[in-house]
Amino acid sequence: MPNDKTPDTDSPDSKSLDCGPGCGGPRVRAIPPGEDRERLMCPDCGYIAYQNPLIVVGAVATWEDGRILLCRRAIEPRKGFWTLPAGFMEERESTREGAAREAWEEARARIDIDHLLAIYDIPRISQVQMIFRARLLSPDVEPGPESLEVGLFAWDEIPWGELAFPTVIWALREHRDRLGRSDCAPAVNPTPDALARWERML
Amino acid sequence: MPNDKTPDTDSPDSKSLDCGPGCGGPRVRAIPPGEDRERLMCPDCGYIAYQNPLIVVGAVATWEDGRILLCRRAIEPRKGFWTLPAGFMEERESTREGAAREAWEEARARIDIDHLLAIYDIPRISQVQMIFRARLLSPDVEPGPESLEVGLFAWDEIPWGELAFPTVIWALREHRDRLGRSDCAPAVNPTPDALARWERML
Repeated sequence: MPNDKTPDTDSPDSKSLDCGPGCGGPRVRAIPPGEDRERLMCPDCGYIAYQNPLIVVGAVATWEDGRILLCRRAIEPRKGFWTLPAGFMEERESTREGAAREAWEEARARIDIDHLLAIYDIPRISQVQMIFRARLLSPDVEPGPESLEVGLFAWDEIPWGELAFPTVIWALREHRDRLGRSDCAPAVNPTPDALARWERML
Repeated sequence: MPNDKTPDTDSPDSKSLDCGPGCGGPRVRAIPPGEDRERLMCPDCGYIAYQNPLIVVGAVATWEDGRILLCRRAIEPRKGFWTLPAGFMEERESTREGAAREAWEEARARIDIDHLLAIYDIPRISQVQMIFRARLLSPDVEPGPESLEVGLFAWDEIPWGELAFPTVIWALREHRDRLGRSDCAPAVNPTPDALARWERML
């Protein structure tokens, strides 16, 4: 089941995006033989450049007093708005390793991942976001290159009007709804009912 | 947090892998400005071809009597071995839609997704596998183009010695361990203890 189309190999170059020295590159949309949808293909050599959804890994990371780590974005989109430490998963890491790496990169925060809080499907932009709960190993944080500032926020201090993305709001709300619970199914995209309930709580 | 590096847009062409008409394509490994690791870059225009982990979506799909859908692979790797219906998630679909699509493509099976059974990290091949539990809406299944044959298997009929991948064994074992439970955290890669316990049960 895994790996239907990519050879199982340890060489990163096996996924090179370059099709051949004499080729113009993947530039034509066509349905490859045996498939049922258009792919970006190289008309010179038949190379198929598969495009797949990306995984975003992140964390609701809390200090012992319950305060939550947030980062103010130094980059677009949504520069200047607050977000959870999160970003694109890299090759050759686990989802948990990726979430810990992002906390370090964006806030110089060292964290221990606890469990998976939520999985959000964002098919419009072909993303799957996996947000973990984590414990900060120290309250000392400072901005990495992609953050203007970082800080620990008590629930009542969260800048709700300045959060960068809906999924940041969702993950914070789920974290609050599930305080003290750890062995439950991860949250998914909220229903309209959940959104309305959160709205009333503001 | 999502989408740090890709513009949020509805145009699939915004992720074109082709960097420019006069360029030789992404073919040099170098550390782009502001980053901390090598990427595949086009030396002509500076285009960065990010390579990210792939998501495999699949299902342990059961009929009313508890029998489980398995597919015998018609393609490499592991051609001729049995697997769960699963494959690479496509763009613009949710994880659940992807798992249902794969069941249709590989076994002409119509399924209702119940909940997330397991998430497996396979960093060696940069994959994250998300395996759902699902109910077959009909026991009538037949091989799609990537399957030699398909069938419904009672627990004692599962061809344990002819399963294609370790994650197929893991997901089947977790399904069995969690019969009757649905609102629990998804399984992760098994510990050595779990593997030893399953081994003893054979």
